[in-house]
Amino acid sequence: MTSSVPTIEIVALSQTFDLAQLFAPGEDQAVRVVRPEEVSNPERIEIALAWRPEGKAFDAYPNLKMVSSIAAGVDSILACPSLRQDTVVTRVRDHSQADLMAGFAAFQVIWHHRRMGDYIANQARHVWDRSFRPQAPGSVTVGVLGYGLMGRKCAMAIAAMGFRVVVARNSVSVVSEVVPDGVEVFAGPDAIHTVAAQADILVNILPLTDTTRDILDHDFFARMRKGAALVQMGRGEHMIEDDLLSALDSGHLSGASVDVFRQEPPEVDHPFWSHPKIMVTPHKASDTSPAEVLRQVLENFAALREGRLPPGLVNREAGY
Amino acid sequence: MTSSVPTIEIVALSQTFDLAQLFAPGEDQAVRVVRPEEVSNPERIEIALAWRPEGKAFDAYPNLKMVSSIAAGVDSILACPSLRQDTVVTRVRDHSQADLMAGFAAFQVIWHHRRMGDYIANQARHVWDRSFRPQAPGSVTVGVLGYGLMGRKCAMAIAAMGFRVVVARNSVSVVSEVVPDGVEVFAGPDAIHTVAAQADILVNILPLTDTTRDILDHDFFARMRKGAALVQMGRGEHMIEDDLLSALDSGHLSGASVDVFRQEPPEVDHPFWSHPKIMVTPHKASDTSPAEVLRQVLENFAALREGRLPPGLVNREAGY
Repeated sequence: MTSSVPTIEIVALSQTFDLAQLFAPGEDQAVRVVRPEEVSNPERIEIALAWRPEGKAFDAYPNLKMVSSIAAGVDSILACPSLRQDTVVTRVRDHSQADLMAGFAAFQVIWHHRRMGDYIANQARHVWDRSFRPQAPGSVTVGVLGYGLMGRKCAMAIAAMGFRVVVARNSVSVVSEVVPDGVEVFAGPDAIHTVAAQADILVNILPLTDTTRDILDHDFFARMRKGAALVQMGRGEHMIEDDLLSALDSGHLSGASVDVFRQEPPEVDHPFWSHPKIMVTPHKASDTSPAEVLRQVLENFAALREGRLPPGLVNREAGY
Repeated sequence: MTSSVPTIEIVALSQTFDLAQLFAPGEDQAVRVVRPEEVSNPERIEIALAWRPEGKAFDAYPNLKMVSSIAAGVDSILACPSLRQDTVVTRVRDHSQADLMAGFAAFQVIWHHRRMGDYIANQARHVWDRSFRPQAPGSVTVGVLGYGLMGRKCAMAIAAMGFRVVVARNSVSVVSEVVPDGVEVFAGPDAIHTVAAQADILVNILPLTDTTRDILDHDFFARMRKGAALVQMGRGEHMIEDDLLSALDSGHLSGASVDVFRQEPPEVDHPFWSHPKIMVTPHKASDTSPAEVLRQVLENFAALREGRLPPGLVNREAGY
């Protein structure tokens, strides 16, 4: 008694992940994510799931209607030369992902504010040292660059720990919304630099666009407060990695947490691994639930078929 | 041109800290915290600042009106045999302290939820391992034992990261208040065990009283969920330390963060220092600002003189 419901085939296009394995079907799955070489008939493919697709990745599928990212970032999809203008691009807006992001940001803020790494080092030596006195959280300014679903949750989680939170968003005119308690929002093209100049701890979760690529560079760090710390959980291409090293080694910045790299995984001799002021994590600020991603892909595709706006629709002009 | 304003002398009574040094005067200080041997006239002492006072500490001050703790805990003061029934006991209610507590609790929750220690170990070996997948925060229950100023802020900070938060408070009938979003409150004598049995991560910030002493013992841990983690930031005397070791070594609990010990500092060969499942911090979940403590001591004393209820008044029956 096998099910005879036709299964939707989604092609997986990624140079970095085996998405077919990552999105392997559970029970009763009406969807099958397949590798390009497993596609039964390329002309019947209407949906692709992509993450860093290769340049010609989309060429083989003349009837492709929609491509979804597996997460919030879509930069590698929009930059793909074979992506046609009429293909709808969607991304995943996952509240669990935003919660994970908020928890990770809160952790890294406390890591720097309370110098938790020193306690870990002291524990290894069995040393009880109470000498460090943290500043009152209310007198510490945490900046958050990016204020979408994720930035908003990060800002709220950090404000809930008593910090003063300033956030930067790109667009001034958006759907009106309530700004959470303890959060101050700067908008417009100068917002990023306004926020960066005030922050004792700066959290980057910007999307990667033409205007944000390479933004975390020497000049940017020089305008940050002396002694400030950076939490880099946006995209690897936001940062000139050597410039972070200079800012840390000169003592201008006090520390950094780096979750994303220009090349992932970074080389085994990448200088961040062994830098005493850097905490490295393997692009795990958030995590995607495969079941939730597939649910959203199908939801977006159903909307598209019915002539509604897919909830995860990407504005290709804006880049996110 | 020295100031001729009379300085109020406060006697410092502590076996563990040199409070006179800790509360050394800044500029224009109208208050001087002095050691017992520095007191000019014991009969003129009306205020004491205390932390773990010795048994006969209060005997020398016949006109003592008020004794203040240097923090939220007052157990060692209430237990002091020389404390007279008519001495008013106050404690410090510091929003900065509560914020620090909330940040520390949030950090430790993420430490366990995301297994951050593994990333630190992997960084030391230059290993990029993305295999661990955290549960969605919304499906993780964090229990908080204690719901005063500190417990409330901790609960809100943890809820802001998307976790389901359940808190236990002792008293059922209190001033009515709004329960924050994402937080569920259990009250009454069974509340502690109800919350402990549900928690994937359990945060203890109870006050130390006759009913909470030694509460974190073998039976308590046995009723916790298999694989749960403990964040012990209440008082050292809440926990039977050997029982935590058994619960971790049997695999019933997955990890613990311990900020408070029965004896502080713990011996250099205390087994927690080198336990792979325990993070040790040196009683730094929060920190007291000396200036704020003195401000509150004087505020409480002024209220007392004017016949008002001191804002930091301790209910000696309840023990907090």
